[in-house]
Amino acid sequence: MKKIGILTSGGDAPGMNAHIRAVVRHGLNKGIEVIGIEDGFAGLIEGKFKKMKRANTANIISLGGTILYTSRCKAFHTIGGRAAAADRIKEANLDGLIVCGGNGSFHGAHLLWKEHQIPAIGTPGTIDNDLYGTDWTIGYDTAINTATEAIDKIRDTAYSHGRVFIVEVMGRNAGFIAMDVGISTGAEYIAIPETESNIDILYKKILEQGKNNRTIVIVGEGDEVGGAMAFSQILKDRFDVKSHVTILGHIQRGGSPTVRDRVLATRLGVAAVDALLEDKTDIMVGQINKELAFIQLEDTWTKKKKIINYQITLSEAV
Amino acid sequence: MKKIGILTSGGDAPGMNAHIRAVVRHGLNKGIEVIGIEDGFAGLIEGKFKKMKRANTANIISLGGTILYTSRCKAFHTIGGRAAAADRIKEANLDGLIVCGGNGSFHGAHLLWKEHQIPAIGTPGTIDNDLYGTDWTIGYDTAINTATEAIDKIRDTAYSHGRVFIVEVMGRNAGFIAMDVGISTGAEYIAIPETESNIDILYKKILEQGKNNRTIVIVGEGDEVGGAMAFSQILKDRFDVKSHVTILGHIQRGGSPTVRDRVLATRLGVAAVDALLEDKTDIMVGQINKELAFIQLEDTWTKKKKIINYQITLSEAV
Amino acid sequence: MKKIGILTSGGDAPGMNAHIRAVVRHGLNKGIEVIGIEDGFAGLIEGKFKKMKRANTANIISLGGTILYTSRCKAFHTIGGRAAAADRIKEANLDGLIVCGGNGSFHGAHLLWKEHQIPAIGTPGTIDNDLYGTDWTIGYDTAINTATEAIDKIRDTAYSHGRVFIVEVMGRNAGFIAMDVGISTGAEYIAIPETESNIDILYKKILEQGKNNRTIVIVGEGDEVGGAMAFSQILKDRFDVKSHVTILGHIQRGGSPTVRDRVLATRLGVAAVDALLEDKTDIMVGQINKELAFIQLEDTWTKKKKIINYQITLSEAV
Amino acid sequence: MKKIGILTSGGDAPGMNAHIRAVVRHGLNKGIEVIGIEDGFAGLIEGKFKKMKRANTANIISLGGTILYTSRCKAFHTIGGRAAAADRIKEANLDGLIVCGGNGSFHGAHLLWKEHQIPAIGTPGTIDNDLYGTDWTIGYDTAINTATEAIDKIRDTAYSHGRVFIVEVMGRNAGFIAMDVGISTGAEYIAIPETESNIDILYKKILEQGKNNRTIVIVGEGDEVGGAMAFSQILKDRFDVKSHVTILGHIQRGGSPTVRDRVLATRLGVAAVDALLEDKTDIMVGQINKELAFIQLEDTWTKKKKIINYQITLSEAV
Repeated sequence: MKKIGILTSGGDAPGMNAHIRAVVRHGLNKGIEVIGIEDGFAGLIEGKFKKMKRANTANIISLGGTILYTSRCKAFHTIGGRAAAADRIKEANLDGLIVCGGNGSFHGAHLLWKEHQIPAIGTPGTIDNDLYGTDWTIGYDTAINTATEAIDKIRDTAYSHGRVFIVEVMGRNAGFIAMDVGISTGAEYIAIPETESNIDILYKKILEQGKNNRTIVIVGEGDEVGGAMAFSQILKDRFDVKSHVTILGHIQRGGSPTVRDRVLATRLGVAAVDALLEDKTDIMVGQINKELAFIQLEDTWTKKKKIINYQITLSEAV
Repeated sequence: MKKIGILTSGGDAPGMNAHIRAVVRHGLNKGIEVIGIEDGFAGLIEGKFKKMKRANTANIISLGGTILYTSRCKAFHTIGGRAAAADRIKEANLDGLIVCGGNGSFHGAHLLWKEHQIPAIGTPGTIDNDLYGTDWTIGYDTAINTATEAIDKIRDTAYSHGRVFIVEVMGRNAGFIAMDVGISTGAEYIAIPETESNIDILYKKILEQGKNNRTIVIVGEGDEVGGAMAFSQILKDRFDVKSHVTILGHIQRGGSPTVRDRVLATRLGVAAVDALLEDKTDIMVGQINKELAFIQLEDTWTKKKKIINYQITLSEAV
Repeated sequence: MKKIGILTSGGDAPGMNAHIRAVVRHGLNKGIEVIGIEDGFAGLIEGKFKKMKRANTANIISLGGTILYTSRCKAFHTIGGRAAAADRIKEANLDGLIVCGGNGSFHGAHLLWKEHQIPAIGTPGTIDNDLYGTDWTIGYDTAINTATEAIDKIRDTAYSHGRVFIVEVMGRNAGFIAMDVGISTGAEYIAIPETESNIDILYKKILEQGKNNRTIVIVGEGDEVGGAMAFSQILKDRFDVKSHVTILGHIQRGGSPTVRDRVLATRLGVAAVDALLEDKTDIMVGQINKELAFIQLEDTWTKKKKIINYQITLSEAV
Repeated sequence: MKKIGILTSGGDAPGMNAHIRAVVRHGLNKGIEVIGIEDGFAGLIEGKFKKMKRANTANIISLGGTILYTSRCKAFHTIGGRAAAADRIKEANLDGLIVCGGNGSFHGAHLLWKEHQIPAIGTPGTIDNDLYGTDWTIGYDTAINTATEAIDKIRDTAYSHGRVFIVEVMGRNAGFIAMDVGISTGAEYIAIPETESNIDILYKKILEQGKNNRTIVIVGEGDEVGGAMAFSQILKDRFDVKSHVTILGHIQRGGSPTVRDRVLATRLGVAAVDALLEDKTDIMVGQINKELAFIQLEDTWTKKKKIINYQITLSEAV
């Protein structure tokens, strides 16, 4: 293992730069060359390779986004696309690849190994936290803090006016963001894709507050009711309750990473380099109960990570 | 002048609590009693009056929202509603009223003076900055900083992915927020209600950026194109350019006030009490070029405050 | 168990309000009365008791500090002081007590149980994270994020000027804060009380950077060298290197809690009430590897929590 | 005017990057070449020149510090040093120079013009706001907001414990920062270099608060008492009042600039380029009452900018 590549893929997540920094610096410390691949798998196919020096990663640990850029690449879903990528990798003499992204990106890394025997390590980079095999993904802690700070501001208006606010947060088909954000903002109701919503309970809570119904409802984007707008419409139609909708949107994907995201991103960057050096491949490096965890890439999308039970209890208890 | 009332009305704005604090403390220092009226004009009609002590305003200077609550009150638009309010004021022996809000609220204060001779002073409390007679309104500086911080996060994704983002900011029929936020985020295009949008210019800027079009467009909610969604649709229909839309929404209305908002709110609170003590009425207390400014309430909604020319120049220059 | 008390003690920590909120609301939901005791053990001796309603904890989940106030109480170190406290508790018919604080506070709670059989549950509330029996303490996550954000700002100047900055962070005799903050700010050197500092290594790192030595050193306040000022002096005396010192100080103790601190504080609040209801006493409720953990109060100060090994590795690897 | 240089000098200030961006982009738009000079006057003497493209200023508007670096240069205080700098300027065919900094830097620019007829424009870049000829300097608004946010956190502890905190802020011999920060944090006492401190008044305020003296005192670093430590000592010696000291230090110099700083920096960048193109020299470009202001460089350090009277009034009124 003399020369490795690193790319970021799929949606960007805060902490990706801290991760790139750790991969580059630990790689250089170990005496290997590190190549940054721009634009994710698209750049891999196009050969957008850049030799990384220590200085290229100076002062980036605090930056959101990814200095290597990212993309969602359709060509990589084809056999031809992956073959072209493998050619670029061989031409550049890369001995292994680190792919930071979500399960779509891991699928690509897995096929690169299966079809072309390119050693590939996945690292969990997504704000959604929906990857089996790691307690948290890089970017998740920042996203939930960003969402919570935004909703703290909305609560100022909810309290000043006595209004019902329905706030939609990201998370795709998983309710992690909604759950943590709901608990941390003291939301009166939390709707997640994993459980069926019971709007009668919400209505009861609104009624309890009397005339000045200062209510915050957090809705995960993948909730089966259909998002915050649909939720608001049901409240109107069934109970004649007026509510305001805010869809937090892309502000949840950016920003300077929190400490947890920076430390996790750094640790997994070091571990991913070590894993390649130990000839590991086709696995994701995660963290479970403070320890490093290694899991087959395939398991990250075939197995389903569960919302922790205590969270559901908490969201009802308080 | 022995006893005065203070209320907040219309949309809440950061700094309203700093303002209430200054009115209460300066009033008490001057030896007069200060009554907090809850829920704006609605609470005035209902007699929701509360005697304020110094301690009631401890530790609130940094809080968003308004501890006196606020409302948009339809009953106050009627002669009967205002008569009821005047009765409450007389019953409580209030010698004057301070109304912190926007031009709708000032209209109410003006009629209270005209119809019932209740001395009334307006203070500019709105994030929109759309009040004639003051350089800035209480809440504006916080709102533009909140929006800018949010868009800084969106820019992380815009840069990482090479995407066009259309971000809609508040401001009603005025482009102040959009203009300041557009300049401060280095937006490629700013659409404000005051000028006609030229989407060809925007398209040219997007083209200039080549394949990776990292573009931020700021659209004021009152823009004649019809907001960010309409803007995005036009880009799609006319130029086949794909863009992402974020509507910042109510996060712009809350949060801990900035220094400028706290200092302005404090200064105008002191000045409003002084104005009542000097038997002024039917005016708004504002600040122009660092000096206190006094203007007829009527002028605040009949005259139109203009976007400063240099801002339009800047938005094109850089 | 019909009536319980809750107090906060020792240094305040962000999340204490979220914790109080959870104790009060979960207690009320379980049908028991909850008494807030002001000023920690000092207020316990003086009988500063206040019946808590749900509304007393509205909108406090996002606030730093503690609405029940706190103190370091010398009288409680005496047998007489604790006897007086026990009298107040019996007069008020409190069936149990929840004490949120650090190991000094737990010592007090333990003696209250030993000497007067007052059922007492401790919950870990300190920014220092130096309590055995829980992965994190309430307030720790906020403190490390606050320190990191502050040092990100200092890094702007370090980079712009090419300077060496020595930044002292809190943590008493434990290096948790220094370690996490050092990794997350990409510090060139981290000095913690648990290990001996090797200033030659630091000097070598400074030399490697050539003329423009953009260097951040994080020093835990309990480090054996004697804090940041001493560190700076040694650099000057031994290597003639000029450095700037910043002691972050009390800003690390305040501020709106992060999501992790709010969720942890909420969870432990619910668990502490449940523990009292299950007739547990003389234990601290913590969280280890995502699960609730129960540990004898005595162990929290007799056993020593260790810095995690991977952190020491990381601080050297990157 | 075909080719101009831009440098940042003295202490770094948030907004310097927004300023560089505006100079570069407006210069390029006007068809002139823009050279970035690194390390301030030191880099000018050493010829550290770099041709700036539009892309060099992409995505820097939100960054603290200065991408051109800065320094305090002793050699430039000598005739020989300035002569060497003039040689570099002539070798590089620079037709004019923009110097962003404080009055020390302006002194240098002035001498470069006097001694070598290098057209030079100053722009006010310092957090201290102590320059005559402009309402605000670039960086000031960010610094006061940073300090206020830090003190909001300290207030959490002051309230929770009932303590007196003495907080020292920057500002050199001017009290601008202390005054704005004192008003915005609702400080009980503000000590500025421009007026004599009356610690009896402070003691009276502390007494008024009774046993739980929740008091914040803001001390400007240039205050004649000698800073926060001296202030604390006097409180101890004269009144036996215990207090806690925090010196905010360099966190006030960094961080992402506020909207006002970004807009001011952008406006003055455009205006500085325009001023060179109009053959102006030996002046500072500032902003007074919303309008651009042009003032002889010499006046910026020979004339003294005054604290605004209303601020002193406010600090006593509330």
